[in-house]
Amino acid sequence: MMIQDRIQKLRELMAERKINVYYIPNEDDHLSDEYTADYFKSKSYMSGFSGESGCTIVTKDFAGLWTDGRFFTQAEDELKGTGVTLMRLRQEGVPNPIDFLIDNTPKNGVLGFDGSVVSAKNYLHLESALKQKKATLYTSEDLVDVVWGKDRPAMPMEPLYVLPKKYTGEEASDRIARVRQAMKNSGADVLLLTALEDPCWTLNIRGNDIACTPVSYAFMMVTDKKINYYIDKKKLTAKVEKHFKDNKVTVRPYTALLKDLTKLTGKKVWADMSHLNANFYAALEGNQIIDAISPVVYFRAIKNKTEIKNTRNAHVKDAVAMIQFLNWVKTNVVKGKMTEVSAQDHLYTLRAKQKDYIEPSFETICAYQENAAMMHYTATQEKHANVKARGFLLVDSGGTYKDGTTDITRTIALGNLTSEEKKLYTKVLKGHLDLLHAKFLYGTTGNNLDILARNPLWNDCIDYQCGTGHGVGHVLSVHEGPQGIRWGMPVNGRAVALQEGMVVTDEPGVYLPHKLGIRIENEMIVQKEEKNFYGQFLSFENITYVPYDRDAIDPQYLSDEELNWINAYHKMIWEKIGPLLTGKDKTFLKKATGKITRA
Amino acid sequence: MMIQDRIQKLRELMAERKINVYYIPNEDDHLSDEYTADYFKSKSYMSGFSGESGCTIVTKDFAGLWTDGRFFTQAEDELKGTGVTLMRLRQEGVPNPIDFLIDNTPKNGVLGFDGSVVSAKNYLHLESALKQKKATLYTSEDLVDVVWGKDRPAMPMEPLYVLPKKYTGEEASDRIARVRQAMKNSGADVLLLTALEDPCWTLNIRGNDIACTPVSYAFMMVTDKKINYYIDKKKLTAKVEKHFKDNKVTVRPYTALLKDLTKLTGKKVWADMSHLNANFYAALEGNQIIDAISPVVYFRAIKNKTEIKNTRNAHVKDAVAMIQFLNWVKTNVVKGKMTEVSAQDHLYTLRAKQKDYIEPSFETICAYQENAAMMHYTATQEKHANVKARGFLLVDSGGTYKDGTTDITRTIALGNLTSEEKKLYTKVLKGHLDLLHAKFLYGTTGNNLDILARNPLWNDCIDYQCGTGHGVGHVLSVHEGPQGIRWGMPVNGRAVALQEGMVVTDEPGVYLPHKLGIRIENEMIVQKEEKNFYGQFLSFENITYVPYDRDAIDPQYLSDEELNWINAYHKMIWEKIGPLLTGKDKTFLKKATGKITRA
Repeated sequence: MMIQDRIQKLRELMAERKINVYYIPNEDDHLSDEYTADYFKSKSYMSGFSGESGCTIVTKDFAGLWTDGRFFTQAEDELKGTGVTLMRLRQEGVPNPIDFLIDNTPKNGVLGFDGSVVSAKNYLHLESALKQKKATLYTSEDLVDVVWGKDRPAMPMEPLYVLPKKYTGEEASDRIARVRQAMKNSGADVLLLTALEDPCWTLNIRGNDIACTPVSYAFMMVTDKKINYYIDKKKLTAKVEKHFKDNKVTVRPYTALLKDLTKLTGKKVWADMSHLNANFYAALEGNQIIDAISPVVYFRAIKNKTEIKNTRNAHVKDAVAMIQFLNWVKTNVVKGKMTEVSAQDHLYTLRAKQKDYIEPSFETICAYQENAAMMHYTATQEKHANVKARGFLLVDSGGTYKDGTTDITRTIALGNLTSEEKKLYTKVLKGHLDLLHAKFLYGTTGNNLDILARNPLWNDCIDYQCGTGHGVGHVLSVHEGPQGIRWGMPVNGRAVALQEGMVVTDEPGVYLPHKLGIRIENEMIVQKEEKNFYGQFLSFENITYVPYDRDAIDPQYLSDEELNWINAYHKMIWEKIGPLLTGKDKTFLKKATGKITRA
Repeated sequence: MMIQDRIQKLRELMAERKINVYYIPNEDDHLSDEYTADYFKSKSYMSGFSGESGCTIVTKDFAGLWTDGRFFTQAEDELKGTGVTLMRLRQEGVPNPIDFLIDNTPKNGVLGFDGSVVSAKNYLHLESALKQKKATLYTSEDLVDVVWGKDRPAMPMEPLYVLPKKYTGEEASDRIARVRQAMKNSGADVLLLTALEDPCWTLNIRGNDIACTPVSYAFMMVTDKKINYYIDKKKLTAKVEKHFKDNKVTVRPYTALLKDLTKLTGKKVWADMSHLNANFYAALEGNQIIDAISPVVYFRAIKNKTEIKNTRNAHVKDAVAMIQFLNWVKTNVVKGKMTEVSAQDHLYTLRAKQKDYIEPSFETICAYQENAAMMHYTATQEKHANVKARGFLLVDSGGTYKDGTTDITRTIALGNLTSEEKKLYTKVLKGHLDLLHAKFLYGTTGNNLDILARNPLWNDCIDYQCGTGHGVGHVLSVHEGPQGIRWGMPVNGRAVALQEGMVVTDEPGVYLPHKLGIRIENEMIVQKEEKNFYGQFLSFENITYVPYDRDAIDPQYLSDEELNWINAYHKMIWEKIGPLLTGKDKTFLKKATGKITRA
């Protein structure tokens, strides 16, 4: 079925039910907002836009796809011919989708959506906003499911596995105890863990239901006496069953949570309403909801010593693969047979050879020249560019290893660059370095720090329309809060202070539509510095060990200090990674880490 | 009476009324939190601490004075021998005063304070927090007034005057219309203007009730038909009475507002609960309060073209006085007779000679060497230092002129400096320059920008324990929000985006207790830069025209770009202010603005 036909069919279903506006968000029933199982890709099914962010809204005479700046170019492309209008989030004059839903639902009208993929928070907001118009919500049916029919992908059924203490540094029993202590402190009788990462972290287990994220579709309900874990039993191995038994975890069917919630009454239930779907919320009637971020979110953000040691080790292995890749690209690009797809395939192969490798930590972005202007571009067999010996190849990739999760971007100079290209690369690098080397007082948030990376570009009236960095999970999601580095305030108005043991990325960039894209990304761990009269100072430990591209650096845009930072970093890489390489890869690294001087 | 006797007498009054804890804030009945009339200086009267920030709390066996980092050294000094404990705000382990009140009021106990100097917001917070303990509030009596008795200073009675359109750029009638439009947009029936600046701005009038701020003790109540202005009639001149008549303003006695509020019922009353005192709040029972920042706060923050032109002009005059002063200090310090007081007196004289001068915009800080480590030090006849030909003299001062308000800090090198002193001065200057030259996208807040000024110091693990900059009023308060430049989030969690026409200061510093203080401060106006694909860029226009101190700058800590900024700035000053000077002052400026090169 073409997109137009799908929309037509949806409109027929809407008309039968007297629904005026239908809302199809990006989320799954856990309100994950990035990677989801194919089963949940309703927004993409109905619009044709395959990016991992946004939503689709359909009315009688309008179909719109909302997405943000990272995806504008990709969405323009994919929406061609579908009749779906691209709604550019946060651009002047573009209503946000929730406001659009409210404004476009007529008096006495009906707004429809599947209550299992919309958060309680948004549900309540929509309900109260529509009350004034006497409009109502229709949420009991998933109309996209009706349109999709037999073609809809099945729910994933991949097996669970235990991630032992040597990787996580802490027994599941100790993690459970910390969770229960947090419940006690907040007076909660029941804690609902609905975000996919939370049960995995708490129980030291991992799964494989979602591409690039080692989690499993499961919910967890904790009381002071009991742990219910809701999952399809087919996913359990004998070893996992024993692990659950040892930790007194009761396994219940995935779909049983809704019923179990209706049985609760008069309880204080801790649930993050941003990650609690509207159906669960409705089932909790008669209980008092403590609406707060789950304690596990803060626990997992602060890595323990074992996790830090392991994460560094994962980055050493990742650096070996990346440096082999850089050498391969630089050597082979002149031969004229390289494509974005052959390059990213080669990188997959190199990472896969590393010990304890699980999978890519996200879909690789391997983008040549103007394709790199799309921040979240994906090259496919059907659609990709040939890589030639000029301009830039941007490669943003990472691996999930049993010991840690990596995320790195290098923008590779292919042949000679123009002085403008070098200038842009160096300005991006300048901001990247200025953030990486910041010292800051305890209490500082990513909201305070963001401008250090952005300043050199803003001073040239250039912006990158995304945050500067995100938190990284430990063998979990590669994008994992609550910390982050961005200049806009989080929606809840509370930026999180950076703390020792948190991992964040540092990835400024320049994206000139239809021209080029440059991004440089390292991972950093927050570490303690001097504590003195003024308080506790913190700084970043740089845990990415891959050189920047000498061929793209124009030292005239760097201060002496910045140039020294690069040379010291490259020297460290040579000493740390050099011994792990052989032959031409080693020769390449020697050259790539050689001292840079002013002309 | 000694401080101990005052506290003793207060404790007796408390005991008679069964009050366990008595709270004496810094505010007046308008909740001004900095300059207030002497009548309202209860906190100082009861503790001996004369700084403009903090509060005093007295229990049966404890008396504490809370203040922030700017005042620690001064408070240590002034509290000696009073028996009052210094409570250092925001230091580890120090409870904030409101939490202290809640924790120290016993079960079934009584917390007392004067309801006219505590905000409705704090009142409600205290009331609800004490409910759990069944403790109550006693707010109907001002016990400090009883202790103070006949010695209490009278309320000020200075005359009002009109500030004509040639200074404000807008007729009062137009300002009133804008206020009424804002009321209409928010659905308010009544707007209460309780902050001292708001009636002045709206009606184009000024007063002289408070030191260093040209305002008058008055309230204002606006409806779509009527304006009531509450003030003591003695303050009105014939000209002001005519101005009020022309603008249909009804004058009512200052004390009549409380009664008038009790007459309101069933109205939507717009009042900022942070600037509405608890007594007024109680009088408004039976009405719906719209608790939001007054529209005038946003209006007055964005200066119009006339105000900007006039403000620049005020700074030109201020620069003439400041440069004459710098020359005077540098020339006379070697003669060995200069004191902090003689220096600040001379500066007053020089400013007073300038056209349209009204008064200092705040109490001058003229602090030699270690005295400058106290951010808000005041030299007095009784207590001040001699100024010698070595080290630094920090001078933070400003003038209110009919055309604008100025605020400038220069730290002056006296004789030879150590290399450490030069290093610190240059690091402060570096941060000051980096902020001054930032470009930033629309939406950026002072919370985003602060680190640009702080970064060079944080990188040496040094902090200044205050914000980097504050908004400045137009012929009103020298400290005037809502905008500001600080790294901590405002209490309400909402930093304000900088907009074209806003004025802010840029004043990083270094304060080494018992050793030295360095601060460099300019005023800046937010102006538009390029608007392009990424949005509207903004930057700062530097409106302070006084050179930095060449004798204190060590260029090794500056980048080439930063050095170029200084030289361009000094050249601009020479061209703009040079023609307004004569004789030795002119010769001095020529030298002071000469090109700085690397050794």
